[in-house]
Amino acid sequence: MLLEFNAKLNQIQAAKQSILCVGLDPDPNRLPEHLLDQYPLADAVVAFNAALIEATAGTACAFKLNFAFYEALGHDGWTTLERTVRLLPPDVLTLADAKRGDIGNTARFYAEAIFEQLGFDACTVAPYMGRDAVDPFLQYAGKAAFVLARTSNPSAADFQECDCDGEKLYERVARHIARWDEESPGTAGLVVGATEPEALARLRALCPTLPFLIPGIGAQGGEPSAIATAVTPTGRVLVNSSRQIIYASGAVDFAEAAAQEAEALRARLATHVGPAAFGTGAQ
Amino acid sequence: MLLEFNAKLNQIQAAKQSILCVGLDPDPNRLPEHLLDQYPLADAVVAFNAALIEATAGTACAFKLNFAFYEALGHDGWTTLERTVRLLPPDVLTLADAKRGDIGNTARFYAEAIFEQLGFDACTVAPYMGRDAVDPFLQYAGKAAFVLARTSNPSAADFQECDCDGEKLYERVARHIARWDEESPGTAGLVVGATEPEALARLRALCPTLPFLIPGIGAQGGEPSAIATAVTPTGRVLVNSSRQIIYASGAVDFAEAAAQEAEALRARLATHVGPAAFGTGAQ
Repeated sequence: MLLEFNAKLNQIQAAKQSILCVGLDPDPNRLPEHLLDQYPLADAVVAFNAALIEATAGTACAFKLNFAFYEALGHDGWTTLERTVRLLPPDVLTLADAKRGDIGNTARFYAEAIFEQLGFDACTVAPYMGRDAVDPFLQYAGKAAFVLARTSNPSAADFQECDCDGEKLYERVARHIARWDEESPGTAGLVVGATEPEALARLRALCPTLPFLIPGIGAQGGEPSAIATAVTPTGRVLVNSSRQIIYASGAVDFAEAAAQEAEALRARLATHVGPAAFGTGAQ
Repeated sequence: MLLEFNAKLNQIQAAKQSILCVGLDPDPNRLPEHLLDQYPLADAVVAFNAALIEATAGTACAFKLNFAFYEALGHDGWTTLERTVRLLPPDVLTLADAKRGDIGNTARFYAEAIFEQLGFDACTVAPYMGRDAVDPFLQYAGKAAFVLARTSNPSAADFQECDCDGEKLYERVARHIARWDEESPGTAGLVVGATEPEALARLRALCPTLPFLIPGIGAQGGEPSAIATAVTPTGRVLVNSSRQIIYASGAVDFAEAAAQEAEALRARLATHVGPAAFGTGAQ
């Protein structure tokens, strides 16, 4: 029997034959003009998200909201997050991409805001401060924290590729996370960029059962074929795409274009990873 | 001539003979009861902060707001941040302790929210994702980003003390930050915990001119005497204390108790670091 978060992931992925996560990252400068003409900015963001959710919820196993795009809305940001979360249907997982990382006393407040107040199923967490910063996010049964291991951005290598006593920093981080997960089983995962197939393979070997959240497909240059190495019968993956889907068209047909792009990407991912990626749906 | 942020820091510290930064981290469970009886939670937080600011602004050279405590207020959080920032007088520096760290495209939104919308003078940034994640915060003349180097929490050593090709990870981070600062001079600083005097000394030797934000005094166990090694005629420091000051009393006299605690700590810090810490006030 899988533990709660992974069981839900397994079941949704099997039902939809999808490992695709759609990133709802509404850049105010890239919203369709007809929405900006029609609504104040915060309402335009919610209308944009609502249409994207409706268009892609049948295809996506998860939606990820990057908090930066909401905080940029100032005091309307949190409400816009809340309104968007309420629009997400029950048959998807909800991910808060906030990359929080602070001392234990403080991290508890972040975890409470994300898991309890906003009700997300999972979130991203930064590892630099060590276990104190991660642990409060691993204390919620049924929730999961995806910890940054090897990220997809161009400068990720600055520190993550450092050689630490014979292993790379990202490998050390992953080994620690796997160990902490053993104490709160099923609550941890890793963020690993699609831009680094070698890191994906190394980390899957180190952490055979942790779920991976994989950004970097599309605008950042990662190829769907690259992620096959991270997929095993026990190792689930979620592949995120944001810009490629949500800005597939900037015109009135944006939602339709997003639906087509999402379905095409879902199918390409399914081809590359094969049936092993979707599990059996068994819980 | 010093560059903008450091010049302002220098001038305020000289005028007040203070390197003390007061952390406004309002834990809803620790607010004075009479405020909670009198106001709804968000208003109680603002009343708490207002009294603390009035009581300690003569003593503090800066105030630091940790975003976790505001996000825990849900949709009232951002407004509470904004209301608190508006209460801060012009003769203090304002620090956003948000520890953000994301890819460049996204980090720009965080920087815009913190520096432009909320109007903070400085913020904290997490280095794990490398230069992309830090650079957007170094593009604001007159503002500063304090990047996590060696933090004060118990598990900081998990990764920060890793040996990376002969140096510790926190040293490598600091060397990179110093180099990035050369390209946008005066915009970077480091976060270094008071709990680690050896790291303070090592980092000051590596980065003689970067300002240091030093947490970990008081509740976390750091001693004011430990920070002397980080102070030089060219190297400014800001020493943060939150819980020790703002919860000095939980009763109606909390602001008065905070004022006494802040002044006592300011004086102790001044004794330990000596006149070199305050500069000349010259700009």
